[in-house]
Amino acid sequence: MPRLLRTEQEQSLTETRGPEYLEILARGLRVVTAFDADRKEMTLSEVASVAGLTRATARRALFTLESLGYVESDGRQFRLTARILNLATAYLSSNGIPAAAQPVVERVSRTIAETCSVGVLDQRDVVFVARASPRRIVSVDLAIGYRLPAHATSVGRALLSGLDGEALDAYLATVEMTKLTPRTVADTSVLRAAIITAREQGYCIVDEEAELGLRSAAVPVRRYDGAVPCAIQVGVRTELVSIGRIHDEILPVLREAAAELGRALV
Amino acid sequence: MPRLLRTEQEQSLTETRGPEYLEILARGLRVVTAFDADRKEMTLSEVASVAGLTRATARRALFTLESLGYVESDGRQFRLTARILNLATAYLSSNGIPAAAQPVVERVSRTIAETCSVGVLDQRDVVFVARASPRRIVSVDLAIGYRLPAHATSVGRALLSGLDGEALDAYLATVEMTKLTPRTVADTSVLRAAIITAREQGYCIVDEEAELGLRSAAVPVRRYDGAVPCAIQVGVRTELVSIGRIHDEILPVLREAAAELGRALV
Repeated sequence: MPRLLRTEQEQSLTETRGPEYLEILARGLRVVTAFDADRKEMTLSEVASVAGLTRATARRALFTLESLGYVESDGRQFRLTARILNLATAYLSSNGIPAAAQPVVERVSRTIAETCSVGVLDQRDVVFVARASPRRIVSVDLAIGYRLPAHATSVGRALLSGLDGEALDAYLATVEMTKLTPRTVADTSVLRAAIITAREQGYCIVDEEAELGLRSAAVPVRRYDGAVPCAIQVGVRTELVSIGRIHDEILPVLREAAAELGRALV
Repeated sequence: MPRLLRTEQEQSLTETRGPEYLEILARGLRVVTAFDADRKEMTLSEVASVAGLTRATARRALFTLESLGYVESDGRQFRLTARILNLATAYLSSNGIPAAAQPVVERVSRTIAETCSVGVLDQRDVVFVARASPRRIVSVDLAIGYRLPAHATSVGRALLSGLDGEALDAYLATVEMTKLTPRTVADTSVLRAAIITAREQGYCIVDEEAELGLRSAAVPVRRYDGAVPCAIQVGVRTELVSIGRIHDEILPVLREAAAELGRALV
């Protein structure tokens, strides 16, 4: 898991990346990720400011992205187009996990009538690559691509339980213990103990550390070679589902689903 | 809709793009989209070949994408990482249509117990940006980013019905009439008539032109300013749902959903 440390490397090695590093490509991708729910449309100056680029560089990146159909504009305001989804499709269809996981999360979600997700580790975050809800109560909830800090989530700790000692040390040495709720774990020794417990038990339960009112249980998905490429999780409202019911009703279903998904990942 | 003609422009203007065009950015994005279900992992040589790049350029693009966490490798085989989904999230959260459409397609899907989707036009294709199924029968079915040629689909013709005369002429002058099934419309004059009928009727029904055994109905979603930024569609199995039932049961629900979605898009 050398990628766990890359963010620091990125920050410190700007000058030493060498001639193989294509700064223009990196800047173009920064222009894409500058857009979000609060910045749906931006002027050239706004894009430059958010992406941390000069106006000249931002203009060339936007012009190029527009030529390729990834961006459209009225000449003043720029916005991303649906063509951007081609990039996601490249990942979703080329990575075996989302395709294998989708039918599994749908079946789990129907079986226990709760939301079920599969996540993968991306540096210090969990990224959800499959999700199914029995019925969406919260209306807008991105099915894929949603990310949360791994340390505060059951699926994150289940994924971290698959790291070897060295990779886990590297993670713990650099993790930022962002508190998502007052109950989020506050120090790395407690976190390390929770991850080791998750490894020994083969599951992890997290109570209101990612979101108040939310309880979640996750099981690491082990591949034939022992690696943990993803983990499967169910989230429930604390007032509706007790820890006891998670143990009795949800964990058996999750364990079976994790075993099935593990066999499907070759 | 000047973007409809851009593909030809892209092909012919390679030399005249001028100094504003960042070839390196374009090549990096080509590396990303080189991956797909048949090319989950590739060597440097394979990436270069599929993306149409020299080995040196492909190596630098892969190195840069790996530095940024979008690609990972064991030194020989390269594959995309979940970080790619950040780019999709940038679109999904910055464009109002997916977020507004998701609860609408979910409600329609529950109401009539069929799959409901919302699509947008991307040059000559429809790209689906929201989708809900009452229960997935086909197990792997990407909820977003899936694309089909607009001319063969109800949602595509509903979108094309929103083009003004000039943009429709431009589309028809350059569309490739790919036959997806033996029943796909074969010539542009028939297609033009179908699009004009869709505009006059405010809906479009397509029977087995996109896929044998599949019938679909779509309604254009009109925004306050008269533009048609997206269309909403329901697909049914031909052996289960007659055209008459589409008229009686599905179109009224779709019309209402389209009106609601149109009001939500400001």
